[in-house]
Amino acid sequence: MNEHQQIIGFDWSALGKNIFFSYNPVSGIYNDHSFYNATVEEVDLAAKKSARAFQQYRKKSGVEKAAFLEAIADEILKAGDHLVEICCNETGLPKGRIEGERGRTIGQLKLFAELLKDGSWVDARIDTAMPDRKPAPKPDIRFMNIAIGPVVVFGASNFPLAFSVAGGDTVSALAAGCPVIVKAHAAHPATSAIIGNAIQIAAKNMNMPDGVFSLLFDDGIQIGIELVKHPLIKAVGFTGSFKAGKALNDVALSRPEPIPVYAEMSSTNPVFILPKMMKEHGAAIAAGYSASLTLGVGQFCTNPGLLFYRKTDDVFKALLKNEFEKTNGGTMLTSNILKSYETGLNDLVATAGVDQLATGKNSDENNYATPALMTTDVSTFNQHVHLAEEIFGPVSLAVRVNSRQEMLDIANKLSGHLTATVYGGEDELIEYKNLLEILEQKVGRVIINNFPTGVEVCSAMVHGGPYPATTNDRTTSVGTAAIFRFTRPVCFQNMPQALLPPELQDENPLSISRLFNGKRAI
Amino acid sequence: MNEHQQIIGFDWSALGKNIFFSYNPVSGIYNDHSFYNATVEEVDLAAKKSARAFQQYRKKSGVEKAAFLEAIADEILKAGDHLVEICCNETGLPKGRIEGERGRTIGQLKLFAELLKDGSWVDARIDTAMPDRKPAPKPDIRFMNIAIGPVVVFGASNFPLAFSVAGGDTVSALAAGCPVIVKAHAAHPATSAIIGNAIQIAAKNMNMPDGVFSLLFDDGIQIGIELVKHPLIKAVGFTGSFKAGKALNDVALSRPEPIPVYAEMSSTNPVFILPKMMKEHGAAIAAGYSASLTLGVGQFCTNPGLLFYRKTDDVFKALLKNEFEKTNGGTMLTSNILKSYETGLNDLVATAGVDQLATGKNSDENNYATPALMTTDVSTFNQHVHLAEEIFGPVSLAVRVNSRQEMLDIANKLSGHLTATVYGGEDELIEYKNLLEILEQKVGRVIINNFPTGVEVCSAMVHGGPYPATTNDRTTSVGTAAIFRFTRPVCFQNMPQALLPPELQDENPLSISRLFNGKRAI
Repeated sequence: MNEHQQIIGFDWSALGKNIFFSYNPVSGIYNDHSFYNATVEEVDLAAKKSARAFQQYRKKSGVEKAAFLEAIADEILKAGDHLVEICCNETGLPKGRIEGERGRTIGQLKLFAELLKDGSWVDARIDTAMPDRKPAPKPDIRFMNIAIGPVVVFGASNFPLAFSVAGGDTVSALAAGCPVIVKAHAAHPATSAIIGNAIQIAAKNMNMPDGVFSLLFDDGIQIGIELVKHPLIKAVGFTGSFKAGKALNDVALSRPEPIPVYAEMSSTNPVFILPKMMKEHGAAIAAGYSASLTLGVGQFCTNPGLLFYRKTDDVFKALLKNEFEKTNGGTMLTSNILKSYETGLNDLVATAGVDQLATGKNSDENNYATPALMTTDVSTFNQHVHLAEEIFGPVSLAVRVNSRQEMLDIANKLSGHLTATVYGGEDELIEYKNLLEILEQKVGRVIINNFPTGVEVCSAMVHGGPYPATTNDRTTSVGTAAIFRFTRPVCFQNMPQALLPPELQDENPLSISRLFNGKRAI
Repeated sequence: MNEHQQIIGFDWSALGKNIFFSYNPVSGIYNDHSFYNATVEEVDLAAKKSARAFQQYRKKSGVEKAAFLEAIADEILKAGDHLVEICCNETGLPKGRIEGERGRTIGQLKLFAELLKDGSWVDARIDTAMPDRKPAPKPDIRFMNIAIGPVVVFGASNFPLAFSVAGGDTVSALAAGCPVIVKAHAAHPATSAIIGNAIQIAAKNMNMPDGVFSLLFDDGIQIGIELVKHPLIKAVGFTGSFKAGKALNDVALSRPEPIPVYAEMSSTNPVFILPKMMKEHGAAIAAGYSASLTLGVGQFCTNPGLLFYRKTDDVFKALLKNEFEKTNGGTMLTSNILKSYETGLNDLVATAGVDQLATGKNSDENNYATPALMTTDVSTFNQHVHLAEEIFGPVSLAVRVNSRQEMLDIANKLSGHLTATVYGGEDELIEYKNLLEILEQKVGRVIINNFPTGVEVCSAMVHGGPYPATTNDRTTSVGTAAIFRFTRPVCFQNMPQALLPPELQDENPLSISRLFNGKRAI
């Protein structure tokens, strides 16, 4: 039996009495890794250490923080095949997927390292003094974004590497200059421990302060709530269900000092197929759609759960059915996720006017979800609110639409989502420009002729969107702009050069791009 | 009698039965301007018109929006001395102050017009495709900030022009591309009507959509709450008391779709005088401080309500007393504000260990507030939470500090404020670097050797700060960065050039600064 303790900065801790085990959803048996549930005292220890570390970490240069992120990447790679095996074992996800996700995690660390080495991300703004201005002299004002303090990150079950211990939230917070306390997801605790150890080693090797990173285990909800309530915590990153995200946000807002919870929650990622495109490329779209919605057993935030197509050609329906029947299901991450999936699916099946068009391949494997493609018409869709809500897993509802206007009406009624996709040729897209203009107001990412399940980690990505897709649509949780969730602007008035951060000194020693008297310099 | 109705887009409306009057706080009598209290139906009419207008207004170019803002500035100037007279009459503020504030309001409109003409503010980011990348092709992703929808702005009593109908919140929302509904402050309704008419005329003349601007009157709280609750409203700008700001924020967060309230609320703007500076320039600092804290009868968000100085030299105390006794009070904006001021002052006076050091000049004018300078020691200050809280008006508490460490301890315990000021020579500031590093974590603006009451409207200004100074410290309500309160990022994946906004097209037709594959271009 491998016994795992809390990581609190450079220390380990096991003050609790209760333990839980890593579980293999494929075999249905527990693994030989045990984890102490963290205690409230350990939450306090981690938060205090984090706050102390913040005072040193916030002053680290971009180059130093970049080296830290790169060292984390190196340490993760050093964990080698062992990490992949453990992760596959805990999640039921295939090796290729986990290797790919590891690549993305490493790439994400390196992308933020590049951002930090460049340094311009702080959005430095300098307005110089005019001492002779009338009626009052103009002071010298200099603006930049600074780190806000210790951040709590909740590991997400569906991305055990890329959105977990060293995932997008952690990396963007560390890049901003904020220490991180991760609440490990109980569905992949051994994976979390490996990554947590890698970060701890990287922090020590790169002379980061004790407390820049901590990792707490708990298979219940109490430790997460205590973390969000702790007065030294300044922000929270979360990816998961609407219910859990909303609950954490409510906790954070009811604190004496409310803090932001950046929760990425619920999205059905509607897809609209325009009629000409459907006629010309129906087979390819049907195949692509079936693949996208069953990828990773449908366990993606950007899984396309709704499809709208013009009922001008029933050929497409037949193509969809044909392609979908070829799809595979798979073992879901946890038995609870499977249970929710089956409940949601049963609700769909039980709705009058909703028909089952096709199912994917079945299996008697443990914890196995069978893909399902449902279909309905617009009037049924409009009658039932739950038809537009997310069911996490490999299911989608294809809605037949009678006219262009019906498509626009449906788009107008959509709530907030992470993505919206439109399939159409350029001429047809121009004809449906109104649809695109509606959709850009509903989502964080508008996608043309691609399925939404690929989320590129880059400067221009927006992985976010209006409520209830997230609790804050002014941000993204993927890509370099994610750093601004963990910063705030501050300005300095008439501060002597020697006391200004390098980003704001006249000489621009870091050679960063700045706004100088309202104009871009460099 | 001049009877004023609601402005709802290009229409007027008077569905209500109840009226209220403009009031002169100096004379203590009502003016001959009457105002219908808006009704819930009018809130709905304004919100719906605003949402319709949004679909056109959001597509206006930067140049078109800039021309609209400039036209508003011109129309305000056309109102001439009449505006100044009415405003002085309603607020009790002197002519020079109102003329200065009009200048600031005009300057603010023109600054945002320049921002829009330049166009780079949208933070365009382009990551180009790599179709041959392995294992998966890289799509083309393009990011920019877009307007979020209709915004409600609450006029502030203490800036009847610069933070009211055409004030900072309105201008930044209009610049972002959001229609605005202003809830006029009942302490300057006739001023609000003049500015509202100016905006309406400018909107018509510049071919803006009907509904880009509305103005509702109410001398109670119901209409404000109904506006914040209306489902078509997407954000709120507010400047005022902690109590009112928090109440509106709670309303906004309890909506089915929560929206952000950008409330600038409560700040005592601590000032720290370092010992050497105090010794060498005590007289000038005492004079400057007395002037700053009594300016505009102390009715500024950035009024310095707390002063910390090293008790090494009682000469400074005598200088403070001497300078403060020369100060004038004045007529406060409303009798309620005076009442709160007097209550707060009485609480201070009644606190054991707090002494009255000096008062400013008294007068039997109507609604007159007499300045008061109180003094106490650190242990008394630490014992009573209310001593650190804002009292809106010309009062300050000077706290004698025994050591450098006590100064640091006090700084560490501060809650969030808009500003913190330190007076010190460069060598002494370097010696107190720790103090500066604490303060930058507590406020939006750190000021050296200046008093905080001047707030420069520029690119680099941060008028904001951690809770309870504001409800959102990631933003500013003054300066061009204020625009981001009313925008959110969206990205387009593989969107054809012809359908991209000009900001994101390859050719860069607007010649804006963009992040191109992670590097600044232009």
